[in-house]
Amino acid sequence: MSFNVSMELIVFRFAEIRLTYHESTKVGLSICIFAAKKRHMNSDIINKLQWRYACKKFDPSKKLSEEKLNMLKEVFNLTATSYGLQPLKMLVINNLDIQKQLVPISMDQEQVRDASHVLVLCREAGMTSEYIIEYFNRVEATRNTPRDILDPFQEFLLTSFAEKKPEDIKLWMEKQAYLALGNLLTACAIEEIDACPMEGFEPEKYDELLQLEEKGLRSVLVLPVGYRAEDDFFSGLKKVRRGVNEVIIEI
Amino acid sequence: MSFNVSMELIVFRFAEIRLTYHESTKVGLSICIFAAKKRHMNSDIINKLQWRYACKKFDPSKKLSEEKLNMLKEVFNLTATSYGLQPLKMLVINNLDIQKQLVPISMDQEQVRDASHVLVLCREAGMTSEYIIEYFNRVEATRNTPRDILDPFQEFLLTSFAEKKPEDIKLWMEKQAYLALGNLLTACAIEEIDACPMEGFEPEKYDELLQLEEKGLRSVLVLPVGYRAEDDFFSGLKKVRRGVNEVIIEI
Repeated sequence: MSFNVSMELIVFRFAEIRLTYHESTKVGLSICIFAAKKRHMNSDIINKLQWRYACKKFDPSKKLSEEKLNMLKEVFNLTATSYGLQPLKMLVINNLDIQKQLVPISMDQEQVRDASHVLVLCREAGMTSEYIIEYFNRVEATRNTPRDILDPFQEFLLTSFAEKKPEDIKLWMEKQAYLALGNLLTACAIEEIDACPMEGFEPEKYDELLQLEEKGLRSVLVLPVGYRAEDDFFSGLKKVRRGVNEVIIEI
Repeated sequence: MSFNVSMELIVFRFAEIRLTYHESTKVGLSICIFAAKKRHMNSDIINKLQWRYACKKFDPSKKLSEEKLNMLKEVFNLTATSYGLQPLKMLVINNLDIQKQLVPISMDQEQVRDASHVLVLCREAGMTSEYIIEYFNRVEATRNTPRDILDPFQEFLLTSFAEKKPEDIKLWMEKQAYLALGNLLTACAIEEIDACPMEGFEPEKYDELLQLEEKGLRSVLVLPVGYRAEDDFFSGLKKVRRGVNEVIIEI
């Protein structure tokens, strides 16, 4: 299906018809609204990001649809990461018993209990040679890239990671989790899914409860997702920002 | 303007007219396409993220419109950050002379020269008490929040940051820059702006060339933005990903 249909063209075609058939005015108006929407798509993203806030109280009765959840999983998988290595996995928790246990190890933030789902962004425990080689095998399988092109780059990455301190690799992976969080938050905003990005939790206790060590993972960030409670006081507050004039420097 | 117009309703109205006036079939088809687009909005985000890639060759003749550029500035300003502190600024470089000088300090990646604009995500040099107090003054001014509510939280943050090592504060700020990068990359994809997220550059040399120390900033990430060259070999390659089945764990 082509997505390149010109709204202006449709309005024009419609206008021709309208000259003949006056009954169609309402449809014409509706089409004009869609044309305007297309033209103002930019401000639509801004509107969605303005609508977004760190949800403090979720409505526990409202659950994400299967479709929305699949979209978020795919968004996570499609996140850009350094070298394309994706040193991350995402836990999707939809289990009230576990969610209740997360509250005391999340600085008592009840969002982890009341949210539809709790996403836990995790990094790999470490970056092994096997992991890097597997990545290049995947590139070869997906793109049919010849080995004489892949091998020098594989060698470069193997050497490069072998020379890095484990602590630096850990930080590099954590940063990729923040990148994924940025992607997910924006996707949530566009889909009008409420979310609350959280650094304030006890990673070691999450790792233990969710048996992350056994999975070769460590928790980095927590993102409860769902729908805001109607009485969340914070949803009505004005957004506080330094402002474009202060945070942007043009050269 | 209301954005809640039901496409189904429009199609229905149109269908009524079509029964009378057969000439309008083409318009009916176009409206159906828009109805389908609305229903598949989710997969539209996925399509956009699939379309996105790390642009290896920009078309230097294609520039971002003022509207798109303003959108990106606003998107950056609206990024979620830890405690809402926004310890970041973004340089927007649109200066061929400077862009040429960036190439040798960006591992010879020519995207910084050929892109329409180069965005440099910077962190604050440090987190001072004045900065934190200014943030709470901004909350008070924006939301009219009483001081007896703000003061305990202000005190908590002042103490908390005073106890942190400067190195840890630096890392915390860098992570926020990655979050902003994730937001910007997704906004770019939705608007079909090409981009190339870059960690591979020499931050100290960027800081010197762009006089960032004088601005109280340090460079963290570079993001050339613009439009892909028609002959960018990489734009045609399949995306390599571990896949949802591997990166998602459901509990």
